[in-house]
Amino acid sequence: MKDLFPHTGKAWIVGVTGNPGAGKSTLTDRLVELWRKEGRRVGVVAVDPTSPFSGGAILGDRIRMQRHFEDPDVFIRSLATRGALGGLSRSAVDVVRVLDAWGADVVIVETVGVGQAELEITRSAHSTLVVVAPGLGDDIQAAKAGIMEIADVFAVNKADREGADATVRDLELMIALGRKILEPPPSTKADCHSMAAAPVRRDVAGHEADGSWTTPICRCVATHNDGVDGVGKWLEEHRRWASQSSAGMKRHGQRVRDQFETEMRDALVEAALRALRPQIDAAVADVSARKADPYSACEALVEAFRRS
Amino acid sequence: MKDLFPHTGKAWIVGVTGNPGAGKSTLTDRLVELWRKEGRRVGVVAVDPTSPFSGGAILGDRIRMQRHFEDPDVFIRSLATRGALGGLSRSAVDVVRVLDAWGADVVIVETVGVGQAELEITRSAHSTLVVVAPGLGDDIQAAKAGIMEIADVFAVNKADREGADATVRDLELMIALGRKILEPPPSTKADCHSMAAAPVRRDVAGHEADGSWTTPICRCVATHNDGVDGVGKWLEEHRRWASQSSAGMKRHGQRVRDQFETEMRDALVEAALRALRPQIDAAVADVSARKADPYSACEALVEAFRRS
Repeated sequence: MKDLFPHTGKAWIVGVTGNPGAGKSTLTDRLVELWRKEGRRVGVVAVDPTSPFSGGAILGDRIRMQRHFEDPDVFIRSLATRGALGGLSRSAVDVVRVLDAWGADVVIVETVGVGQAELEITRSAHSTLVVVAPGLGDDIQAAKAGIMEIADVFAVNKADREGADATVRDLELMIALGRKILEPPPSTKADCHSMAAAPVRRDVAGHEADGSWTTPICRCVATHNDGVDGVGKWLEEHRRWASQSSAGMKRHGQRVRDQFETEMRDALVEAALRALRPQIDAAVADVSARKADPYSACEALVEAFRRS
Repeated sequence: MKDLFPHTGKAWIVGVTGNPGAGKSTLTDRLVELWRKEGRRVGVVAVDPTSPFSGGAILGDRIRMQRHFEDPDVFIRSLATRGALGGLSRSAVDVVRVLDAWGADVVIVETVGVGQAELEITRSAHSTLVVVAPGLGDDIQAAKAGIMEIADVFAVNKADREGADATVRDLELMIALGRKILEPPPSTKADCHSMAAAPVRRDVAGHEADGSWTTPICRCVATHNDGVDGVGKWLEEHRRWASQSSAGMKRHGQRVRDQFETEMRDALVEAALRALRPQIDAAVADVSARKADPYSACEALVEAFRRS
């Protein structure tokens, strides 16, 4: 990986995340199709939760991408979540770098959900697409809050279903709150579905007058390949913003920092587990027998590592 | 927390998790009701995803629990997810210990989703209930794999909805796979909904002849308070298994170890960030400018910490 690093840095890394059932895989598949038509080389890293029982990635929805398997300019890699802290995000980042060095123009990192590992993986992306679908229950309100932080573009997939308008309205409100504008959101929507017909108002999505970025909301129906070009256009727009505006470059710098800190944490934990195995075993035994409290035991182990 | 630790260890810690929209909060609310009727003191730690924009916990679904707010023997605490690695699970574990020391007989830890932080939090529970609802899309198949590891009892909530039978069948199959039995699962279901009517067969759920535990599947409709007593009974059954059987005690021991390692990792990262702040800043600048690769930079930082 050290030798590979000098060959990286050219690919555009696009994170795709969202709740289960939102249709991330189908939309990813359509984006691969879109970018392949433009002649770009595409890598896909799909992060699948795994059962320790089955021991491998759940490949069910990967099968939908099978039609790209014979394309030499598409490389798809599924990663299993191993349950080990840090391990997943670390290997995903490594695979992204391998695909970058391979010469991918775009690398899509698709993750399920809004957990810590997913957050970390998406932080390594240049542009992150959050896919939501209408009518997935009210808890989604809460889950959305967690992804607000990372969404550069929202796709409301399955937009032909009942409840799509309500989902768009919810997202608009959250975005407005994020911008600290507490009056109702503007009625003009950033609707990618009709982007060709009506120019999108710059004051409700995308580049702002003050140089910041407001997350646009794109409606699409990935299974019918409807509205996917709009999603692609807004992602491009975000890429331009991130690489050219000073606010975008600042945000990119923050993400580089976040990702590096994550890598450092992983390295640190790995080294400590290697160095302290017998001491950790003894501490666990003491804490289990309630002969020590875990707070003091942790402090002692950290000190032991610094002196190791 | 060190002074508090000797007063902990008496509460039964019950994790409640599952996908967005499964109805975790409603079911938690019903379990609180059930256990209060039995005169137990109940603590609830609800972990809510947070937006860095809103800065606080999303309290929407907490409002449903309002009727318990005036009960002096119920203590409810919402925690926001701060996006910081380790921070969430650590504070949740601390709050659980505070409620334990306060004298709670049961502490329910409710989390959204199947992310890393949720996994860690539920690992600190004695018994974990995973709530699923029918018809939340096909990605759920994948998400379920991640929660198989932590489920001691499954609740199929909203069991009056279409698709409930399919959801139960899916879970049965996954459980059968987990037991390495590759033939179709037995037709007799562990159906808590009809538990009073028909005795549950011990060979399909709960205590096994070999001393292991097979996750039972309970149907319920939490909004109608239907089948919730069955969920409660199976949780009790699991508690008995975990505290009395040798396999249960072994598993509990493993969870204590996992939780301690998580606490140690958090303490380690915190100490390193404190000790290395200027060196980390320099390394980030080097990596951003591509003057260093992140792998070598991490190794150097770990060494610097050990010599600090």
